[in-house]
Amino acid sequence: MKDTEIRKLENVKITDSFWRSRMDVIRDEVIPYQWEALNDRIPDAPASHAMENFKIAAGESTGEFYGFVFQDSDVAKWLEATAYSLETDPNPDLEKTADEVIDLIGRAQQKNGYLNTFFSVKEPDGKWSNLRDQHEMYCAGHMIEAAVAYYQVTGKRKLLDIMCRFVDHIDSVFGKEENKIRGYDGHQEIELALVKLYQVTGNERYLSLSKLFIDERGQQPHFFDLEKEARHDDKKFWWDDAEFGPYSYHQAHLPVRQQKEAVGHAVRAMYMYTAMADLAKETGDESLKEATETLWENVTQKQMYITGGVGSQVWGEAFSFDYDLPNDTCYTETCASIGLVFWANRMLNLEKNSKYADVMERALYNGTISGMDLSGKKFFYVNPLEVHPKSSEKRHDKGHVKPIRQKWYSCACCPPNLARLIASIGRYIYSVNQNEVFVHLYMGNESELNIDGQNVQLVQETNYPWDGQVKITLSPEKSSEFTTAVRIPGWCQGAVLKVNGEFIEVNTCLKNGYAYLTRLWEKGDEIEIHFPMPVEKIRSNPNVRENAGKVALQRGPVVYCLEEVDNGVNLPSITLPQNSKLQATFEENLLDGVCVVTAHAEQVDETAWNGELYKPIERRTKPISIKAVPYFSWCNREPGEMLVWITEK
Amino acid sequence: MKDTEIRKLENVKITDSFWRSRMDVIRDEVIPYQWEALNDRIPDAPASHAMENFKIAAGESTGEFYGFVFQDSDVAKWLEATAYSLETDPNPDLEKTADEVIDLIGRAQQKNGYLNTFFSVKEPDGKWSNLRDQHEMYCAGHMIEAAVAYYQVTGKRKLLDIMCRFVDHIDSVFGKEENKIRGYDGHQEIELALVKLYQVTGNERYLSLSKLFIDERGQQPHFFDLEKEARHDDKKFWWDDAEFGPYSYHQAHLPVRQQKEAVGHAVRAMYMYTAMADLAKETGDESLKEATETLWENVTQKQMYITGGVGSQVWGEAFSFDYDLPNDTCYTETCASIGLVFWANRMLNLEKNSKYADVMERALYNGTISGMDLSGKKFFYVNPLEVHPKSSEKRHDKGHVKPIRQKWYSCACCPPNLARLIASIGRYIYSVNQNEVFVHLYMGNESELNIDGQNVQLVQETNYPWDGQVKITLSPEKSSEFTTAVRIPGWCQGAVLKVNGEFIEVNTCLKNGYAYLTRLWEKGDEIEIHFPMPVEKIRSNPNVRENAGKVALQRGPVVYCLEEVDNGVNLPSITLPQNSKLQATFEENLLDGVCVVTAHAEQVDETAWNGELYKPIERRTKPISIKAVPYFSWCNREPGEMLVWITEK
Repeated sequence: MKDTEIRKLENVKITDSFWRSRMDVIRDEVIPYQWEALNDRIPDAPASHAMENFKIAAGESTGEFYGFVFQDSDVAKWLEATAYSLETDPNPDLEKTADEVIDLIGRAQQKNGYLNTFFSVKEPDGKWSNLRDQHEMYCAGHMIEAAVAYYQVTGKRKLLDIMCRFVDHIDSVFGKEENKIRGYDGHQEIELALVKLYQVTGNERYLSLSKLFIDERGQQPHFFDLEKEARHDDKKFWWDDAEFGPYSYHQAHLPVRQQKEAVGHAVRAMYMYTAMADLAKETGDESLKEATETLWENVTQKQMYITGGVGSQVWGEAFSFDYDLPNDTCYTETCASIGLVFWANRMLNLEKNSKYADVMERALYNGTISGMDLSGKKFFYVNPLEVHPKSSEKRHDKGHVKPIRQKWYSCACCPPNLARLIASIGRYIYSVNQNEVFVHLYMGNESELNIDGQNVQLVQETNYPWDGQVKITLSPEKSSEFTTAVRIPGWCQGAVLKVNGEFIEVNTCLKNGYAYLTRLWEKGDEIEIHFPMPVEKIRSNPNVRENAGKVALQRGPVVYCLEEVDNGVNLPSITLPQNSKLQATFEENLLDGVCVVTAHAEQVDETAWNGELYKPIERRTKPISIKAVPYFSWCNREPGEMLVWITEK
Repeated sequence: MKDTEIRKLENVKITDSFWRSRMDVIRDEVIPYQWEALNDRIPDAPASHAMENFKIAAGESTGEFYGFVFQDSDVAKWLEATAYSLETDPNPDLEKTADEVIDLIGRAQQKNGYLNTFFSVKEPDGKWSNLRDQHEMYCAGHMIEAAVAYYQVTGKRKLLDIMCRFVDHIDSVFGKEENKIRGYDGHQEIELALVKLYQVTGNERYLSLSKLFIDERGQQPHFFDLEKEARHDDKKFWWDDAEFGPYSYHQAHLPVRQQKEAVGHAVRAMYMYTAMADLAKETGDESLKEATETLWENVTQKQMYITGGVGSQVWGEAFSFDYDLPNDTCYTETCASIGLVFWANRMLNLEKNSKYADVMERALYNGTISGMDLSGKKFFYVNPLEVHPKSSEKRHDKGHVKPIRQKWYSCACCPPNLARLIASIGRYIYSVNQNEVFVHLYMGNESELNIDGQNVQLVQETNYPWDGQVKITLSPEKSSEFTTAVRIPGWCQGAVLKVNGEFIEVNTCLKNGYAYLTRLWEKGDEIEIHFPMPVEKIRSNPNVRENAGKVALQRGPVVYCLEEVDNGVNLPSITLPQNSKLQATFEENLLDGVCVVTAHAEQVDETAWNGELYKPIERRTKPISIKAVPYFSWCNREPGEMLVWITEK
């Protein structure tokens, strides 16, 4: 049984106030700003040179290549985000600009199909000589994703054809045959992109190539050693995990099916696991499916922050080890949380289990969108769970934890990645499997889905995540029997479900976290769901050393934090009594409208101290009121301390 | 009024079981082992080459200089420790070896007095060209200290004369005169050494030279910039504090009298502050005295660990900022705590105030001796207050926190520094100020001190630090009036004082933490002191974020810790109820005999968790018994987790 997953979204129109405003910001701020950045028209910003590199490669400008080896991918990500934006918000001027960029890319492509401005301009003799470090296929992968999206949205094949030619060239260079390179890229990305390319073209060679890269990874003799030897490089690789060796940085320390723990660079890991799930789905490879499931359990049950952040250390922007989740030195890159959303989405393709959608939702409402300020002008790459500005300023080991969002970086990975995620958020709400439609996410939208051969209109109305009331109105063209499976979030106790006003006992139709409603659906049938949303005090597994004795506040899918602007300095000195009542209130004028959590708490009484550093004194506290705001919204007012995990008394 | 401080200790004989056993270890293990190491006779140990460098410099061996620029200082520290050891434990063979080393040093000295094997062998043209980095005067300083100690102990002048010649040479090169270099060393050490040299020789030029180095430090135009320019070095210095700039690493960011906060490399800071106190004392410079007092308050009230450790970060082995005292990422180098002891000792010379002796005692019983295992064969450079071995293995930002002591390092600073401290511990017990004798430390000893012109025998009997009972028997040659001022430790409440069995109300004679007993002392007079030693729960100032809600256990001067070997894994999940009774018991057969602390506590009950990472679950604990051991003794059994600051419930 093959799913027809939702891959194109002309028929999902987001009406949700929460997400629509973010999509508007992407459309109105991020995409135009990035376009200016790519063309070096932002005063005081580090030069991008990305468009200029393509012009030089096309022979239309002179000068030197400038930027990172992966500079091309910035253009790709812009194109992909632009495609999604055009899908929801048609804009002929923007489309024209995109077409021109694509034309330029075409002119920059070499005769044999090769396309990478760093190598064609700067190191023409260095092609395919250092896959480990040089991101050659990583750039290709992003451009493939852009090509697929642009084709899906506009129907225009030009970039798709360009990238097919490039992939054909790659396919002629890489393979198990003797005259080919039996290798793979140091930064996974092309693997998942090739699956997309296969899905739109039907060309099985693209699927095979993806499978080759995944299957070869981590085999012995090790490709990174072989290519290193071939280029007479005797430098020790800078990363060397005590347990898994240097190539665990690239998740290439073991064949992928033998990997049981997430290790190394978190974004690479996410992209690889996504591709593994894709391939497991497309090829029916059970061993690959099992490997992704094992890795999923490891990541989400042992190495994920409550915000959906992953990557516990700045060194290598990487995973560290099970239950090592420090709040103030984590990396938790925005891109890694975005990658987790991709992966969760693919796991849902493999199996309809709400545990995947729960994590997807957790990342979406917390650790991804925290990467951008409300205006779409500043970005976090690192999304810490505890911030003390002076520590960030003065401690070298916390230098990566910025206390305020930064403008566009020279390494511009996270902002455009957020842009493409948010612009395509509609693709993550539903999936259709023949005569079953799954509702994974709750957000206002008006959609038309093809279920079992006929168009069904679905209208979701909700004030989620601030309110657990959801109404879904279904209107099939004609009355017909199919299943609507609505997700009961893992955070929710006592969900109430009604169809056309009639109570349905959730337990009687619950399977893997979805309530399966199978019936003859008629035009205007209404599903009403009420998800009770008390503020919950969440604890960590006792093995998480950093959170011992602490709780985090969560309401619905939204994780909360304390900010200095609301609660004063020295947030760690606040304790929350076990019996303290947690009050949720919607504040329309705060942070574009958020639900805040208030409570009575205690804070160490400093008046008992006269400047001493240590003394045997009884614990003395004073009562205070605390106010917590959604984690994603922190640092949109006065900068200062921030804290997610609060000490409980 | 000029103190005759105790600078030579032939008359202080340590009988204390706690310290005597450590001195034996230094004599029997550390000094012989280091001698073998200096001569490259330890299999599997990194080569030292230190003796060989002197032979090459003396023209008695061929080959290249090998080692750090400060390799010579290893020989100096060995000689200094050897001197102190000879003082308490005469050993003709060892003295002969030391004499031979001194002869060799003499032959390695250049005609003009210059002495540094790195420069005379490897970079003869580089002398005095990079004071900032090259440790030229640092090495000289250690050799001066060795020369002074060896002269004091043996009466032999040879090394003293060698070093006087070298200092005379340095004096001809450095100074405010136009033809001289107006500079100072990047690593302070010679400043305090020159004061010692002045004290034994009476040569005021040595005092002036020390004062020059201290006074010039941090002046503008900046010497490090000038010498950098002179050697055409345009590299940015690697350290750059956001607030105080690059030269705060060397405490040269401001003239020393303007420095209010401890910054930069902690050992350098300690050595400089020590010299500042020395100079303030010797020259009566009030501005220098005030500066040291300000810095003392800053370090001990805002930047010192409860163990007497200083240096909160590995980056630069340095201070960070006020109240930043992370337990699991600190540097707290053994040498820095030793430096704190030196500084405290000099502050006591300036003012008899128990706050100085309290810190000295804190460092002595905790953060210094934790640097060595009980057998004297393994050493910590970093003395963390919380250790999780897997974090040390897998996290780059905790890689410096070793979970087990290491054998002799290639950079061998800490072991010989500990050796010289412990071998000379008797010098820290008393000081005499005309007709006043001050008892700063409590340990068993039999001493003969010159008080107001006559010999007074003092015998201390105590089982300190395990027991707060101290008996001091005084026997002046003839009955005479003088003051015996005994320190009432800051940790002690309710000290009971008796002279010849008669109670003395402590408050009636207490001044700056010392009980002044002025009377006609007769042969055999007995002072008995009882310091109650309950186990105390110590809290940190609320500004110490890392210790919020936590307590440390301390009994007398000894800080305690939990070890995995006694308490199982996951020490942070243990909570100590506020009303829990803390029981102290001496265990003769544990760790060479220590007092342990036991208590009923609680630990998070893991059985309520089925592998989930986050859930809204009530806090559930199980009762456990905990056992804490002295911090200094940790890691002498099975390696594992360690924790000083325990969460309080």
